[in-house]
Amino acid sequence: MNERIVVTYQVAAAPAEIAARAEALAIEQSVECPLAAVTEQRIRDEILGRVEAIEPIGEARFAVRISLASATAPAEPGQLINMLFGNSSILPDVTLADVELPPGYPAAFGGPKFGIGGIRARLGVPRRALTASALKPQGLPPEALASLAHRLALGGIDLIKDDHGIADQAFSPFAARVPAVAAALRQASDSRGATTLYAPHVSGSLDDMRRQLDIVRREELPAVMLMPMVVGLANFHLVAKEAAGLIVLAHPSLAGAQRIAPDLLLGKLFRLLGADATIFPHHGGRFAYAPGTCRALAEAARRDRHDLKPCLPVPAGGIAIDRIAALLAFYGSDVMLLIGGSLLAAGEHLTEQAARFTAEVASHGQ
Amino acid sequence: MNERIVVTYQVAAAPAEIAARAEALAIEQSVECPLAAVTEQRIRDEILGRVEAIEPIGEARFAVRISLASATAPAEPGQLINMLFGNSSILPDVTLADVELPPGYPAAFGGPKFGIGGIRARLGVPRRALTASALKPQGLPPEALASLAHRLALGGIDLIKDDHGIADQAFSPFAARVPAVAAALRQASDSRGATTLYAPHVSGSLDDMRRQLDIVRREELPAVMLMPMVVGLANFHLVAKEAAGLIVLAHPSLAGAQRIAPDLLLGKLFRLLGADATIFPHHGGRFAYAPGTCRALAEAARRDRHDLKPCLPVPAGGIAIDRIAALLAFYGSDVMLLIGGSLLAAGEHLTEQAARFTAEVASHGQ
Repeated sequence: MNERIVVTYQVAAAPAEIAARAEALAIEQSVECPLAAVTEQRIRDEILGRVEAIEPIGEARFAVRISLASATAPAEPGQLINMLFGNSSILPDVTLADVELPPGYPAAFGGPKFGIGGIRARLGVPRRALTASALKPQGLPPEALASLAHRLALGGIDLIKDDHGIADQAFSPFAARVPAVAAALRQASDSRGATTLYAPHVSGSLDDMRRQLDIVRREELPAVMLMPMVVGLANFHLVAKEAAGLIVLAHPSLAGAQRIAPDLLLGKLFRLLGADATIFPHHGGRFAYAPGTCRALAEAARRDRHDLKPCLPVPAGGIAIDRIAALLAFYGSDVMLLIGGSLLAAGEHLTEQAARFTAEVASHGQ
Repeated sequence: MNERIVVTYQVAAAPAEIAARAEALAIEQSVECPLAAVTEQRIRDEILGRVEAIEPIGEARFAVRISLASATAPAEPGQLINMLFGNSSILPDVTLADVELPPGYPAAFGGPKFGIGGIRARLGVPRRALTASALKPQGLPPEALASLAHRLALGGIDLIKDDHGIADQAFSPFAARVPAVAAALRQASDSRGATTLYAPHVSGSLDDMRRQLDIVRREELPAVMLMPMVVGLANFHLVAKEAAGLIVLAHPSLAGAQRIAPDLLLGKLFRLLGADATIFPHHGGRFAYAPGTCRALAEAARRDRHDLKPCLPVPAGGIAIDRIAALLAFYGSDVMLLIGGSLLAAGEHLTEQAARFTAEVASHGQ
């Protein structure tokens, strides 16, 4: 294939300089050398990035649309991000705002295997908003995390994930923690007659992640969580592909540091590479995402696009029960609300607090 | 082991708020939940992040030193960066400035296998500054890249690497390109009686990289280049470990987007994980690193630290021959100057231009 990938950068530059800056970006993200070194006409015609449009979007700020040859970025996630924002990430006044990919990419990458519908089917919850919580703090041994999981599940939580800080530490090795939590959740699901899904955090090198996936499969668990920007996009995509039958959650660790628009990275790209659900900080919590960022991210995760299944938005990061009505008004019901810390702070009343959370969500419609 | 990792963040905050912001950071990067949810005294004592110091460094700007428990971040590179800057990367007013690791980490990670001395020994060049160039533009077929490599080598270049945009594309598949360039460089080395090292760009998932490494080994090549932030730090480290006998170059693609101090990321951390040489943009070229950033980066790569071999600084990004004297004055001779585009623009005079480059470097001392 050799079609054009259309990339939108936002560039801070004086109006008199923007045309040259845009040309320089088109070169940087394609041939990456002076045009004098590009002697073949075919490469100038087909491989060289092209400035397609420059549009002012603010005081000394421009949206620059550049088309790149798909031949330079085959459907390999690492090379794709390398061509979109490899060297230009080093330019302090450039951010990556959006990407339109030819249809071959979604077809090759595949997107979510479950998506919103598949997660709902797995839970038997067709319409209402979904609920999630996290196991923490770090430092607890497997039995203590399993006990938290059990008590959260008895409160009716749909999905429980490891905190992303819980990996394969000596105080809670993956091989001990995951079976312990899985057993606790099987017991809780049996006693309340409804499913609570468990998503262990899978991390490390690709080899590490495959060893962990073996344990996940042995325990017949339904889901996993990964940090795509930490494990590398190519390995994220490969694990998502290999994790047949498993719901894949993406965690934004390290992704916030990128000067890449969150809706593009956590919404569109993570979905493209196989995230069934994408976790991100809702505005007004501990992080500083604007409401518009959150809306654009949820929209990028869910909207009809090629034949990709929609990806479930999972707002998190300091949500409390008293904000649920506002969150559901904001996102609608195709959402999973993730409340961690403010449930866990309930101590011995954890199950009751979890039940308040799930009842409040249910009160907005089954 | 449970020692303390000491992390320095730079935080933009009002003086009245910095104490609370520092405490919040210490929580975010450790237990990540309200203290009310941390009921075990042992976890409060040992696992919870501690604010060790807060120091003003400018108008409403502070250096905050936080110590984290090494037990939360075993010597696994992904988990280490996750604990250093996972969620806090999402905070727009926080940057990761520095890290002091207990000696167990350098011992476990191992650092460069060759380092500056090993690269010099491989080349038989004990003292003078080293020279490098890159194969580009993208879109050229293997024979054309091999011809460029041959002509650059005849000009006396010490090391030739693939452009980081050259991966495994249809116009130049890895399996065809690498043997072609390797053969051209063997021939050039024979005819000039001195070695030019070739570093192919190894990319993709860990599986992809291992397949590519097989080809590198089959061709008995001396070096490889990887993009640690794209492939994931854990996979970078694993490949560096597995690449026995190969010099490992790190490329800064995507790394510039991080709000992580370049000297820490490209200097200290890439070296720690096995980079024998680290490529970065020199100031005054196409990128915007300040001179102080470049100096700190080179210093972090080279200085005596634990038992790690020094890592070779490779300034690049728009260097031309007329800047060599200034660059050598700036970095000293333990450096490899990487000039790509401005050599390639010489067209049919490529070998002569490369010879001017190497002669100019040699004129500053053998």
